[in-house]
Amino acid sequence: MASMVRLQLVEVHAAATRALLTTQLLPASVEAIASTITDAERDGCKSHGLFRVPGYCKTVQLGKADAGAEPAVELAAPSVVQVDGARGFAPLALARGLPELAKAAKAQGVAVMAVRNVLHFASLWHEVEYLADRGLVGLACVSTKAYVAHGVGASSDRIYGTNPLAFAFPRAGQNHLIFDQASAAMARGEISLAGIAGELLPPGCAVDESGEPTLDPATALRGAQLTFGGIKGSNIALMVELLAAGLTASPLAYQAAENDNDPDSMTATLSGELVLAIDPAHTAATGDPVAHAESLFGRILGQQDGFLPSTSRHCGSQRADLRRRSEEEGVDVPADLLASITSLT
Amino acid sequence: MASMVRLQLVEVHAAATRALLTTQLLPASVEAIASTITDAERDGCKSHGLFRVPGYCKTVQLGKADAGAEPAVELAAPSVVQVDGARGFAPLALARGLPELAKAAKAQGVAVMAVRNVLHFASLWHEVEYLADRGLVGLACVSTKAYVAHGVGASSDRIYGTNPLAFAFPRAGQNHLIFDQASAAMARGEISLAGIAGELLPPGCAVDESGEPTLDPATALRGAQLTFGGIKGSNIALMVELLAAGLTASPLAYQAAENDNDPDSMTATLSGELVLAIDPAHTAATGDPVAHAESLFGRILGQQDGFLPSTSRHCGSQRADLRRRSEEEGVDVPADLLASITSLT
Repeated sequence: MASMVRLQLVEVHAAATRALLTTQLLPASVEAIASTITDAERDGCKSHGLFRVPGYCKTVQLGKADAGAEPAVELAAPSVVQVDGARGFAPLALARGLPELAKAAKAQGVAVMAVRNVLHFASLWHEVEYLADRGLVGLACVSTKAYVAHGVGASSDRIYGTNPLAFAFPRAGQNHLIFDQASAAMARGEISLAGIAGELLPPGCAVDESGEPTLDPATALRGAQLTFGGIKGSNIALMVELLAAGLTASPLAYQAAENDNDPDSMTATLSGELVLAIDPAHTAATGDPVAHAESLFGRILGQQDGFLPSTSRHCGSQRADLRRRSEEEGVDVPADLLASITSLT
Repeated sequence: MASMVRLQLVEVHAAATRALLTTQLLPASVEAIASTITDAERDGCKSHGLFRVPGYCKTVQLGKADAGAEPAVELAAPSVVQVDGARGFAPLALARGLPELAKAAKAQGVAVMAVRNVLHFASLWHEVEYLADRGLVGLACVSTKAYVAHGVGASSDRIYGTNPLAFAFPRAGQNHLIFDQASAAMARGEISLAGIAGELLPPGCAVDESGEPTLDPATALRGAQLTFGGIKGSNIALMVELLAAGLTASPLAYQAAENDNDPDSMTATLSGELVLAIDPAHTAATGDPVAHAESLFGRILGQQDGFLPSTSRHCGSQRADLRRRSEEEGVDVPADLLASITSLT
């Protein structure tokens, strides 16, 4: 069991800020990234918390991100917000673009935000929670560099990134319904961890270099991951790829992998993102969609409180309890992780 | 092997039209339904072809559909088209609404069509193919009456319909990329057919009345179906439910099942549908998204032509070949099905 250190959330924010400031990132970008990291720690999303700080720094050092990037936001059509991330990290681009997306969705009924030239290195629920907090339905998807094959085997050709999809439906006076899930059956980090632990993978997660199914983690990492849900899950990955990278004319996942100068490490890669916002105020002639959907949530949540798994954030009271506890008591961070972040400063 | 009859597509259309006209459906509605049925036969989607005619007729006879329904189309916001189906079948409502949706998407960059008071009894690829034919990216989803549980078991509570999701991305001078897939792991009709054939179901398709996994078709039909892809697939079903029934304030799947006066038969049920259209002309600052995505299609289709399964229509040349052959040579229809349709007139 790793030695843990208790940090208050302001200390998490400060530790991230100090490390990120060493990279010459603009203060506004550092603030946006540190806030995103702090929110992840607060909500128990450790894999997108302080754990990411060294990767952000290395991404700048490798020249993959532009430290001085100032995002540009433009209304390209009445319902289309374009954000040029200028080769910077996503949090600042999103902080600049999301208010315009929400404004366009309220004015037009629905709007999309097309984000390009951005390095996305955080979880997607941030974007859709922002929208749900404003009473909007949100859908977000992002493409990453390719690790995942199409279909159920017979090829190890890496076509897709882990290609997450996040969705939020607002609830009045409740935690919004939010899920945020990769199209890959298993996270790449989990495969690595299984290898370290000497464990086999569950069936259906990966193929070897010749496209044959494998349960061996090292073989899987050399081959290709598979999507969740067989061919139907592959179609979801394909949809995410086309929405995030296709519509924004950003590098497709396989192109991002080919162009990457750090293929084996945990650094971010230039990609596209698409965020959709729908205002429930205009989609029903009578009745309030938000109130209407409550009976569904009651029915699902009634089965088993907090039933949605770690891939699905924010539904049920578990996440809210965790958030409240983190705000009151702070969070536990591995001492060696904190030391490695402090050593960057 | 059932005895088959070769029909030209005009004969398919005429047979459907004659049967549907006996129900007092308005001629415009009959024409829209007959065209939808003919398109399904043309493309090899037998389960949405002439097979559906008796169901359409019975749905009217049971008073579930209003034969005289005249849909109303309204622009509720600059990017939101509302269609009130007036308790009629979906094809006429869609024929009236889709041109307005495409117009709004071209003008605003993105638009949604919220369809309510409609009985959807056809496949969804029609809607998104219409949009792709006009250069738009399309996404459509519809909720049906509930047969499907949330999650991977432990409850047989029927929450979702089969909840299909259809997606189209346009291709220039090629068959568009289109998939149309249920969120249920297996079609209900396939479970019935497995029972008749004395076969077991694949694992992961259904639970019995106490929520325990079952491979027995009859037990599955009494219990609940499961979604594809475990909890991630359930989240897709949930998203479809919220977009289609939630946003339109239409009966949720479990409400539709409770209200249904023909729970065990293949008739349509009042539901909501949401269709999204995005114009690629506004989502990228430089480059053409449609041209950009071609290299992805080349990479996937290059692996195995027509690789997408029966849940996924229109990608690759197989569907195009089938369509061309049907137009030239006609289609084969079971003689007993044709006799049952003729007997309605």
